[in-house]
Amino acid sequence: MQTTSALSSLRRWLQENRLDGMIVPRADPWQSENSAPHDDKLAWLTGFDGSAGLALVLPDRALLFVDGRYQVQARLQVNTDAFEIHHLHNEPLAQWLQENVAAGSRIAFEPLLMTNAEYALLAATPCQLTPLEASPFDTLWHDRPAAPAGEIREMMLAVSGESSAEKRQRVAQRLAEAGVDYLAITLPDNIAWLLNVRGTDVPMNPVPLSFALLSRSGEVEWFVAQAKLRTLPASVLEGVTVSPQEAFVDRCRELSAGRRVWLDENAAPVALRFAIEPQGEILWQADPITFMKAIKNPVELAGYRECHLADGAAWVNFLAWLSREVPQREADGNPLTELEAEDRQLAFRQQQAGFIEPGFSTISAAGSNAAMCHYHSSEATSLPLNRDQFYLNDSGGQYQNGTTDATRTLAWGKVTPQQRLHYTAVLKGFLALIGLQFPSGTHGHQLDAFARQPLWALGLDYDHGTGHGVGHQLLIHENPQRIAKKVNPWPLVAGSIMTIEPGYYQEGSHGIRIENQVEIVDSAPGFCRFASLTLIPIDLNQVELNLLSDREKQWLDEYHQRVREALSPRVESDARPWLFAATAPIRVQGS
Amino acid sequence: MQTTSALSSLRRWLQENRLDGMIVPRADPWQSENSAPHDDKLAWLTGFDGSAGLALVLPDRALLFVDGRYQVQARLQVNTDAFEIHHLHNEPLAQWLQENVAAGSRIAFEPLLMTNAEYALLAATPCQLTPLEASPFDTLWHDRPAAPAGEIREMMLAVSGESSAEKRQRVAQRLAEAGVDYLAITLPDNIAWLLNVRGTDVPMNPVPLSFALLSRSGEVEWFVAQAKLRTLPASVLEGVTVSPQEAFVDRCRELSAGRRVWLDENAAPVALRFAIEPQGEILWQADPITFMKAIKNPVELAGYRECHLADGAAWVNFLAWLSREVPQREADGNPLTELEAEDRQLAFRQQQAGFIEPGFSTISAAGSNAAMCHYHSSEATSLPLNRDQFYLNDSGGQYQNGTTDATRTLAWGKVTPQQRLHYTAVLKGFLALIGLQFPSGTHGHQLDAFARQPLWALGLDYDHGTGHGVGHQLLIHENPQRIAKKVNPWPLVAGSIMTIEPGYYQEGSHGIRIENQVEIVDSAPGFCRFASLTLIPIDLNQVELNLLSDREKQWLDEYHQRVREALSPRVESDARPWLFAATAPIRVQGS
Repeated sequence: MQTTSALSSLRRWLQENRLDGMIVPRADPWQSENSAPHDDKLAWLTGFDGSAGLALVLPDRALLFVDGRYQVQARLQVNTDAFEIHHLHNEPLAQWLQENVAAGSRIAFEPLLMTNAEYALLAATPCQLTPLEASPFDTLWHDRPAAPAGEIREMMLAVSGESSAEKRQRVAQRLAEAGVDYLAITLPDNIAWLLNVRGTDVPMNPVPLSFALLSRSGEVEWFVAQAKLRTLPASVLEGVTVSPQEAFVDRCRELSAGRRVWLDENAAPVALRFAIEPQGEILWQADPITFMKAIKNPVELAGYRECHLADGAAWVNFLAWLSREVPQREADGNPLTELEAEDRQLAFRQQQAGFIEPGFSTISAAGSNAAMCHYHSSEATSLPLNRDQFYLNDSGGQYQNGTTDATRTLAWGKVTPQQRLHYTAVLKGFLALIGLQFPSGTHGHQLDAFARQPLWALGLDYDHGTGHGVGHQLLIHENPQRIAKKVNPWPLVAGSIMTIEPGYYQEGSHGIRIENQVEIVDSAPGFCRFASLTLIPIDLNQVELNLLSDREKQWLDEYHQRVREALSPRVESDARPWLFAATAPIRVQGS
Repeated sequence: MQTTSALSSLRRWLQENRLDGMIVPRADPWQSENSAPHDDKLAWLTGFDGSAGLALVLPDRALLFVDGRYQVQARLQVNTDAFEIHHLHNEPLAQWLQENVAAGSRIAFEPLLMTNAEYALLAATPCQLTPLEASPFDTLWHDRPAAPAGEIREMMLAVSGESSAEKRQRVAQRLAEAGVDYLAITLPDNIAWLLNVRGTDVPMNPVPLSFALLSRSGEVEWFVAQAKLRTLPASVLEGVTVSPQEAFVDRCRELSAGRRVWLDENAAPVALRFAIEPQGEILWQADPITFMKAIKNPVELAGYRECHLADGAAWVNFLAWLSREVPQREADGNPLTELEAEDRQLAFRQQQAGFIEPGFSTISAAGSNAAMCHYHSSEATSLPLNRDQFYLNDSGGQYQNGTTDATRTLAWGKVTPQQRLHYTAVLKGFLALIGLQFPSGTHGHQLDAFARQPLWALGLDYDHGTGHGVGHQLLIHENPQRIAKKVNPWPLVAGSIMTIEPGYYQEGSHGIRIENQVEIVDSAPGFCRFASLTLIPIDLNQVELNLLSDREKQWLDEYHQRVREALSPRVESDARPWLFAATAPIRVQGS
């Protein structure tokens, strides 16, 4: 539980600066899903370390707003005598300010940490929103971690497939078409793509935290700490001017006089609006790189396919090892733990050529832990793996030539009949979606329900999206396409990489998810289909085979044949018998 | 082909009034899908009588803008020496004005015929849009049909299920919640619902063309021609002030001083904005009645179910008659025609108690005519019905207690193997959607693809929506819910009435559509399903039965059993053998 000294020191600072309050968001300047410890002021202030939320600090009250996922966690981590916990979406900050804060109250905020849309909502309240020139946390937070200074490496043409010069010309062309002079790039994965570089500021998120400006003639000014560039070949910086990261907003101010600047409507900090609006014009629209980057080129696609062979081999080695260890260790009265499994899996991945690091925090969840969608094991929570309970593993790797993300749920003995039914429904949803042929340009929200329908038929559902984009040695959740209930305006087209991952979760009991990463490929004229990149056997021991159609069985048999043929030369010899058994045709397995 | 005297007279009038042009839309003041001859200035001016489009008349050029459906028809009906034909969506009027008309040109328009959204687009061009106080067509169009004066009848409580007074209180409550003083009701079907009346201004569209104002205290001022009320019981007008239709806009002007008025964002004429904005405030939002009306009450639902029994019996009498007539007449060398079939079907409907009139123009289409989605037979186009070709019939009725809409496609001999495959795919899509259980509040765009998937698997699709709402003795296309590719923001909830109607069309060859009307009913907790209102056998003679799953066959058998049991007491005795054969279980039919 956090002490309240951070809160006291912030309140003193507010008083000294004649401010009536301050908004402290979880967000960093890049609206990152995973940010650096340096940027986690919210955890310093409140103790809450979830991935989304914000605090409002007033002289006499302090509030923490978190979403539905974090209501329990926040109450465990935060001193609730000091902080009231509110719901981020059901009781949004703007509404709370409207109803509870006196008109004209000076509420401070850091304009680099707030998007324009967030600002617009808050600016409509009667508060006087007061942008700060400098962050108070540099002085108040005594042991603040240093800003990350991770080295930036080159992404060679042999893996990126297109030179940075060509990419810059393609994007510059888009600026010309839109009648725009500059694109202010505030999304680090878009900078990584444009410049063919990768960063190491935040583990498992290989983006270079920085900003960039691209002019209509294709020139780039890169606002990045020099320290990060020390091992970067000079050739990468051809046609690129390097400036300090801190110079970015002022540079936008100077450059924009009488000019038109393109800002990403979803992520650009409102600081840029304040800088540009007085003398320049803004085009608020999605950064064009976001969708260009989503259509992978043939070299990138080949890289994804290749690294999935390596990752598939690591998975099979791991699953074969589990099939020996789980029953043995359970029989020995010393059952395997979630953390042991996670460690062993990492070791198997590290044996693979091209492996860099995990792509995200592994979910290694046994029994009831798997019912928590975003669970991560710790010594305190790690459960034993038992033959007769589901074990869910959602993991992936950053490889030199791509990124992997897959989930398998399995058991080695017999789960309950109800759990078999749930597993079969999740599998049928997975098969319904992954087997679709659909018109090119269809949207994710048009297809999402195929993955849910077998659960819906049982009166069940799952409360997360069905699929997301995956970056090319970049972010594990890559925009813009999504397959989910929520409307997504971006079309699914050939060359995009997605996941397909329906699940089902019964609190306190079990969790099931089956996830393949797929590429979207052309099929019949005007139509696309999903082609699996993931090559990992799907556990059929827990399936009610009589509920599968002939077509579903055929898909599984063909998939397993492909997995067997692709991986048998690559897996360890003691894993090969398991691979052959796990990928045998259903008529053999089912007999 | 139209002569150009109307165009000449309009041009003279423009010159006399120092105007540089005029916009003449197909729209009437209610943005009706089907309007009265009185309102069809566009047909008078151009000869084009399609249901959507607009003309721009300039001193030296005249343009007709029509959508993709009407490109061919417009060229047939319009003198293309006088009118250039443009594409309504690909080359919109606003863009054409921007690029071709001198800044400041005075372009006239009737503000009662244009929505606010349309006006906003045009007002952004450099033209000087000039609203007209009075319509020039009253004088220029010498033989203009009189404004419709159809009698308005009462919708008795026994069929409406809720008194107008109760409805007014419910809507007034919504105004209070929204902080609004008046609701300006410009959608005639919403007036019909609110006042429990039906009109006869336009055949098959039983809405009273009129306007209304509802105050926050539940009082109604109804702007309607007195002549329409001559047979309406005085009790219907309790709490209602009647004023001339022409007084509506001025009344909005007077009432709105310092007040807030709710206008439908999609349909309200911009004339109201001009009238209210100078001294009042406008809430632009969907008329709240639109969604309240979409949730039918138990009495309305019982009415729908009841009238579908009558309509089903008429269908079975008709289909049994066809099964005798088509082969006989073909053998006699005097085949039945589309128009004969349509007439006979109407006669069967007219035998049913409660039948008022057709719900819409029947589509009675044989062979290649069915490939045109919006085809209507005429002496010139009517084709013979042949045993070995598909015949498509899309028809319905206005009944005292509801409205029906259904489509069946059938043949009496053998269609081609490809046509069987297409028919089977359409049927499988129909079954996939109609058999779904889905969370209450799901949107149509999330479910639409289920109806398309079997066609998608063949690389095929259809270019229309999958389902629409149906009014209660009201409009055949009732807002707001839709099942279509396009995003629809309104949730599907229990009590709503929809159609499910996938199809497939191969130009010059054949057209297939299978349509049931359904109500949405509660099922598992939090879930809904579709329950068929339509009771008409589905032709299984043209189905590849080996492509149907056991579940699909079970649905068909259960449906047919329900149809047989519900209709056998109601159909003519010589239709009963056909009904029994057409609804026999698949194992019997397939043998």
